[in-house]
Amino acid sequence: MLASQFLSTELKEFDNTFNEAVKSHIPLLDIIMQYVARRKGKQLRPIFVLLTAKMCGNVTEQSYRAAALIELLHTATLVHDDVVDDAETRRGFFSINAIWKNKIAVLVGDYLLSKGLLLSLGNGDFTILQILSTAVKEMSEGELLQLEKSRKLDITEEVYFEIIKAKTASLISSACAAGAYSSSADKVLSDKCKLLGENIGMAFQIKDDLFDYGTMDVGKPTGNDIKEKKVTLPLIYTMQQCDARTKSKIKYILKNNNKDKKDVQFIIDKVIKTGGVEYAETVMKKFINNAYALLNDWPASEAKEVMKDLINYTIDRKK
Amino acid sequence: MLASQFLSTELKEFDNTFNEAVKSHIPLLDIIMQYVARRKGKQLRPIFVLLTAKMCGNVTEQSYRAAALIELLHTATLVHDDVVDDAETRRGFFSINAIWKNKIAVLVGDYLLSKGLLLSLGNGDFTILQILSTAVKEMSEGELLQLEKSRKLDITEEVYFEIIKAKTASLISSACAAGAYSSSADKVLSDKCKLLGENIGMAFQIKDDLFDYGTMDVGKPTGNDIKEKKVTLPLIYTMQQCDARTKSKIKYILKNNNKDKKDVQFIIDKVIKTGGVEYAETVMKKFINNAYALLNDWPASEAKEVMKDLINYTIDRKK
Repeated sequence: MLASQFLSTELKEFDNTFNEAVKSHIPLLDIIMQYVARRKGKQLRPIFVLLTAKMCGNVTEQSYRAAALIELLHTATLVHDDVVDDAETRRGFFSINAIWKNKIAVLVGDYLLSKGLLLSLGNGDFTILQILSTAVKEMSEGELLQLEKSRKLDITEEVYFEIIKAKTASLISSACAAGAYSSSADKVLSDKCKLLGENIGMAFQIKDDLFDYGTMDVGKPTGNDIKEKKVTLPLIYTMQQCDARTKSKIKYILKNNNKDKKDVQFIIDKVIKTGGVEYAETVMKKFINNAYALLNDWPASEAKEVMKDLINYTIDRKK
Repeated sequence: MLASQFLSTELKEFDNTFNEAVKSHIPLLDIIMQYVARRKGKQLRPIFVLLTAKMCGNVTEQSYRAAALIELLHTATLVHDDVVDDAETRRGFFSINAIWKNKIAVLVGDYLLSKGLLLSLGNGDFTILQILSTAVKEMSEGELLQLEKSRKLDITEEVYFEIIKAKTASLISSACAAGAYSSSADKVLSDKCKLLGENIGMAFQIKDDLFDYGTMDVGKPTGNDIKEKKVTLPLIYTMQQCDARTKSKIKYILKNNNKDKKDVQFIIDKVIKTGGVEYAETVMKKFINNAYALLNDWPASEAKEVMKDLINYTIDRKK
């Protein structure tokens, strides 16, 4: 069963909390917020909050606020990312950046952050705020670490795992920890949910990184990471496997700022040929198996089954 | 007496708290933080926190954390402003943006925000966090309101005051409220400090806006706001005073994206000639007098005298 279907009532309630939180008396801001609300994505993070809350007890008012806070934080980072990535489009719409320019994107991001803070502070959700602030810190550290390492092109598997744990897994694991905390006082349970989210998050990012190289069922590789000098798991493996000459050719291509289509394709072909894609898929499945193993401890419930489907979605999704 | 002299011991202690808070294990981040620390400005906001704390009782550990939090927030907004304003230089150094690009500027800003949050949350400074989150919300609202109004060039005095109250005065008033709260449980006292800071903040921004038009003792007008279509108090007054033809010429110049030096000078001359500068100075002094009136209620103390000097600095500063 789709998580969004299973949680349809809860997601409506969450929407109310979220929309109430972003209301503003500044007309420009209200227009932007409607625009932000319209282009809302799969709401994966609120879903993780609400689903873990259900797995650990009942969805509470605090669960809704935790879900709203994490979506505010996530939207703020997306809006900031519009600056960061200079993306022309995001989720199929024009990015705020393209339309309203950097200036507004940064301010709206700050506004969303402060609204999230005030929502949590006003209701005394201090532990949840701490869980999620830690995630924000780790996310920015992870992105900065990736930037630093990209310049040097010397990413090892160890560093790669450190990066994706910080930049992606930390927010999903915090969502799960916050969801558990909002419905149960059991610290062991929320620690277990945190670990569950961490494993799902690691798999999620590896899947994202695999899109760069295409897979049988996904279609054309995108090559975006290669263009941005981001060395991810499939390529790390390939650079360990290939001969010195190929390795230095790959490095040469990565360093080049105006990459040729042919050059990008050369790297993609090498990665596929040396088994970099299969290797990354194996590692991804290892994280998924960890997640399943953690779920085994849980008593049977509909929420648990939906979580299993959500985990499968992580690795089966086509985009 | 200079506030920085009066508070020299406290500012050293504050520095320790701040530097401890921004420590990171990411090498790139540590380099940037050293760079941020080196270009530290007049530390006006921590000074307001520590000085109001002294005016209301004793500087406490919470005062230092409040000062560090506000400086973290302020530094985060400066770093984000590097994106926002696309400034080539800031405080005489190259902006982080110019050297490290937008990407890093946004991430570092987010990192600083999260570190400030964690510092406060970890120590249970919830009220202070709420005071300052409100300020961040108001600052972003104020900036966005100014952007919205700038496009339409229809700023009234009322809207101007709303803008500068939100974008500048709110952070200074929050600094004063937080300082008072950190040293005294007296709610009336912290409300009074908030109002004191608000009046100082209003005067501070009007002074800033006056630099655009130059004054006798300041030297050459900068005209930066005019270039950015920002209509501030001196020009609002002038547009009320001048004839319809001049008004539409001013609007025409403001709308033009590639302003001629001569055109900018035309507006500056009009503002000076119609008394826009004197008018804004009168309003600025009104806010300063409000601040003085509030101080009258306070028992005599060295801290109070230093606050008076700080207020005078607000309107006497040359940059």
